[in-house]
Amino acid sequence: MEVCTGPLGQGICNAVGLAISEAHMAATFNTDDHKIFDNHTFVICGDGCLQEGISGEASSLAGHLGLGKLIILYDDNSITIDGETDLSFSEDVGMRFEAYGWHVQAVGDVSDLSILRRAINNAKAETGKPSIIKIKTLIGHGSPSKEGKESSHGAPLGKEDLAGAKRNFGLPDDKSFYVPEEVQEVFTAAAEKGDKQRVAWDAAFAEYTAANPEKAAELSRRMARELPEGIFDNLPSFTIGQDKDLATRKFSEKCLTAMCPLLPEMVGGSADLTPSNLTHFKGAVDFQKDSPEGRYLRFGVREHAMAAVCNGIFAYGGLRPFCATFLTFVGYCVGAIRLSALSQFGVIYVMTHDSIGLGEDGPTHQPIETLESLRSMPNIMVYRPADSNETSAAYKMALSKAKTPTVICASRSTVIALENSSIEKACKGGYIAVDVDSPKLVLIGTGSEVNFCVEAAKKLTAAGTPTRVVSMPCQELFLEQSEEYQKSVLPGNVPTLSVEASSPHGWHRFSHAQIAMTTFGASGNGDAVFKHFGFSTDNVVAKGQALVDFYGGGAAPDIMNRPVFNNIMGKLH
Amino acid sequence: MEVCTGPLGQGICNAVGLAISEAHMAATFNTDDHKIFDNHTFVICGDGCLQEGISGEASSLAGHLGLGKLIILYDDNSITIDGETDLSFSEDVGMRFEAYGWHVQAVGDVSDLSILRRAINNAKAETGKPSIIKIKTLIGHGSPSKEGKESSHGAPLGKEDLAGAKRNFGLPDDKSFYVPEEVQEVFTAAAEKGDKQRVAWDAAFAEYTAANPEKAAELSRRMARELPEGIFDNLPSFTIGQDKDLATRKFSEKCLTAMCPLLPEMVGGSADLTPSNLTHFKGAVDFQKDSPEGRYLRFGVREHAMAAVCNGIFAYGGLRPFCATFLTFVGYCVGAIRLSALSQFGVIYVMTHDSIGLGEDGPTHQPIETLESLRSMPNIMVYRPADSNETSAAYKMALSKAKTPTVICASRSTVIALENSSIEKACKGGYIAVDVDSPKLVLIGTGSEVNFCVEAAKKLTAAGTPTRVVSMPCQELFLEQSEEYQKSVLPGNVPTLSVEASSPHGWHRFSHAQIAMTTFGASGNGDAVFKHFGFSTDNVVAKGQALVDFYGGGAAPDIMNRPVFNNIMGKLH
Repeated sequence: MEVCTGPLGQGICNAVGLAISEAHMAATFNTDDHKIFDNHTFVICGDGCLQEGISGEASSLAGHLGLGKLIILYDDNSITIDGETDLSFSEDVGMRFEAYGWHVQAVGDVSDLSILRRAINNAKAETGKPSIIKIKTLIGHGSPSKEGKESSHGAPLGKEDLAGAKRNFGLPDDKSFYVPEEVQEVFTAAAEKGDKQRVAWDAAFAEYTAANPEKAAELSRRMARELPEGIFDNLPSFTIGQDKDLATRKFSEKCLTAMCPLLPEMVGGSADLTPSNLTHFKGAVDFQKDSPEGRYLRFGVREHAMAAVCNGIFAYGGLRPFCATFLTFVGYCVGAIRLSALSQFGVIYVMTHDSIGLGEDGPTHQPIETLESLRSMPNIMVYRPADSNETSAAYKMALSKAKTPTVICASRSTVIALENSSIEKACKGGYIAVDVDSPKLVLIGTGSEVNFCVEAAKKLTAAGTPTRVVSMPCQELFLEQSEEYQKSVLPGNVPTLSVEASSPHGWHRFSHAQIAMTTFGASGNGDAVFKHFGFSTDNVVAKGQALVDFYGGGAAPDIMNRPVFNNIMGKLH
Repeated sequence: MEVCTGPLGQGICNAVGLAISEAHMAATFNTDDHKIFDNHTFVICGDGCLQEGISGEASSLAGHLGLGKLIILYDDNSITIDGETDLSFSEDVGMRFEAYGWHVQAVGDVSDLSILRRAINNAKAETGKPSIIKIKTLIGHGSPSKEGKESSHGAPLGKEDLAGAKRNFGLPDDKSFYVPEEVQEVFTAAAEKGDKQRVAWDAAFAEYTAANPEKAAELSRRMARELPEGIFDNLPSFTIGQDKDLATRKFSEKCLTAMCPLLPEMVGGSADLTPSNLTHFKGAVDFQKDSPEGRYLRFGVREHAMAAVCNGIFAYGGLRPFCATFLTFVGYCVGAIRLSALSQFGVIYVMTHDSIGLGEDGPTHQPIETLESLRSMPNIMVYRPADSNETSAAYKMALSKAKTPTVICASRSTVIALENSSIEKACKGGYIAVDVDSPKLVLIGTGSEVNFCVEAAKKLTAAGTPTRVVSMPCQELFLEQSEEYQKSVLPGNVPTLSVEASSPHGWHRFSHAQIAMTTFGASGNGDAVFKHFGFSTDNVVAKGQALVDFYGGGAAPDIMNRPVFNNIMGKLH
């Protein structure tokens, strides 16, 4: 199982995700006769991993869930990069894990492997709790001058110390690459053992397939990350005059409730914001210690671990995790979100309360820099749907791209359906929502702000400034379209004003001017806050006309006429 | 003491910062005769605060530091937004805090205030450890139908329940705003007590001032956040041919070593990356339990708590905190960085290893989206200095702006000094580093990439394409300059290529095309990684010429000719 654990603490969370997945997949696919899912999850970690808050979050959750097949080997070498751990880390780690509900052991002498082996066997025997084994080790073991010192952490030992270490271990010091015979034997035996286990598992799975053809076929589909044909026909589509305008978080809930029963690989939940994020799809059962078949995860108020646990769940295979919090709390978990993107794990992030429009919770809860932060990240799709159809498009594209994580940014409050929206159009990332002949002005909106553009365009057009409205739910998708399509939507030399209640930082690519947020938000009624910061039909009319006047009513500099110099590998989608 | 604790877990960390500050200021300013700093720090927190990893990080640090005057009152009401805490949170919080080295008490019956008062007195009596008091409470206490239920968390009780609650407390239910006499008496007495304490403290401080005029003057200067006159004359400035080219992290170390002895309000440290971040200024003494006079903080591997603790330190007053990690780990602490910006706390973030140029640690450690994420945030200055003078300018501006946090992004590897750089020029955020008559091409670089631009410009100019180089260490500062200055540096209609080893997302404001990162990085020797992704003199020459050719050797669309529509309040700096 390969996971990208470079940044400290991520690995423990990934392991919690792997152990959750094993329990869930075993409960879902194993039969009385065939245990095709049956593995332990091991973690080897150091002090740094355990100092990071993210590992505390995940360990508390693992204890709560009683993940009995998760075993941490804690390499307790008393050294960090700054020096001895007692510079900053003097807590009793074993007691902390006991408090989390873990089974805790300590191994004082790591050089006697039989003690370590016994501890691991004890850990396996404790099936109701995750286990941690604290193992006293010596960093730089064997090095004459760097043993037990931080200087052996990040740099090579150096010629003299390396030779000394070799001598200490009875190895010839004149050979750069030397494998003693007994080491070779151990590794050869391990390979043979692994080979046999693989053959045995393949045989067991063949038997399982014969006995449970449907389950086996479903499992194979899920492991291949294939979707059943026609699955997206079940996504809600919106008919004006018939369906009710709602917040996009409500449309997101409808999408989850449409998809989750048809896609049992979808598992997920919220960081204790279920009634706000609306992620509890109809029929969802909690994943808990006594209900591992459940697919709804109660992550607790633990955003960073939530995202990293989802990375582990995706890595296990056969599962498509989603998780949720408020958009602004991307700032609590972006360290793990970037690893979804880097690892090509198609985790779906449902981030509601996506702008100052959330109102009363105030500026601490109102994202400003978040959309731009995510749009600047490689291999991630950021959607800010304006209505029901655009929300369905976001789920369609998210589920279609298994190697790319997606962030769906949804509104707290009601949006008004666009007359010209459709799932198909929204899947191009940006499209003409309101058109006119020979536009003198283009308004680009996203999410809840598109409606201000639609209303403003009516007024501007009526007043003699023919105005086009472009809805752009996903910049990344729009940039994947042909140059011809892009320019058919955004002519580039027609004065263009973007309207998004977020930082203007990246919008200079598409628009000549922006109605945007250059300060933090404010607390108040959502509509009042929008208006205060210039998100209103009247202000869009005023600034739209001002922009047209700025260019003397004629052409603007053609900002779409620019070359793109991709770097070596291009953007992965 | 006002701190912005909206997002869960921040408050506990702020309190750890306040308690650190109290200990440090007492050790620095109190005399045997006068204890002008002598306060406890109280926290009232809930389950959510304690589930967040950030609070675990800070609590472990507080235990290590033995902050005996820090007292947490834990409102243990067994309810979160999703429902009962046992959905996700079944750990033994008391035992966990014992493991951190805290003094732990539990109060079962909160309605008997004498028990609570006794517990607080016990907590005060324990001066060697921080204290937590776990207090069982009932959410929605007194409400007939919502007591003990999550429905009373985020919404008003409703008319009927409100009336019922009033009845239960013996209050008249026909009055909307009613203050019983005994409550009024308690509050009046508290105001009188506070008033007396203030008068007594003022008198004590007057005595202190008479006895210790220099200390008092220094304290007043620090509390007013004023800097001694001429302080910046001490910043290093670089003379080519005389001084040695180094990495900007080394120049950052020189700035800290120049400023810290002169500005005793500067306190800070690193999240266990001291030898990499180079923040251990000459003469720094560790702040530890037995050395509260120390100014160097060993934060441990706890980035998020580090940033939030610094917010608390700034809030206390009289201190100017700085802290450090790798730039990519902004993703671990941006939740607290945004609160520095929102709270107008001038924390200085020293973020080294600022690009793919860091090399071997690979893509998990190489920031891509980070610069754009920070540049999208209101009220924060982001510097990426290209050489020694620009690094000094970053410190000068950072220290000058007490109400604005600063991120100084520094390179791991050596940069070559710019012939035309100066502290003064760099303080304009962007300036002409290499000029030519009638440029046909403008190259904009930041940080370590400016040198590729300088070398490329030489070649391009020699080959018949007169090329200007602009160094832009700080976009925010550049945008604060007059429109005239901005256009004198960037004409707008001369083909402009920006070169930064980071996301191109926000660069469309200033450049027609970008050499940038649209994928994650790679592991390898730093120079090789730069070259692989197109950061080389040759590629800048090739793409620069291609850009000139794209526009037929003539004018490009004038991207600097755009109106700016600020929202209501403008950007705070």
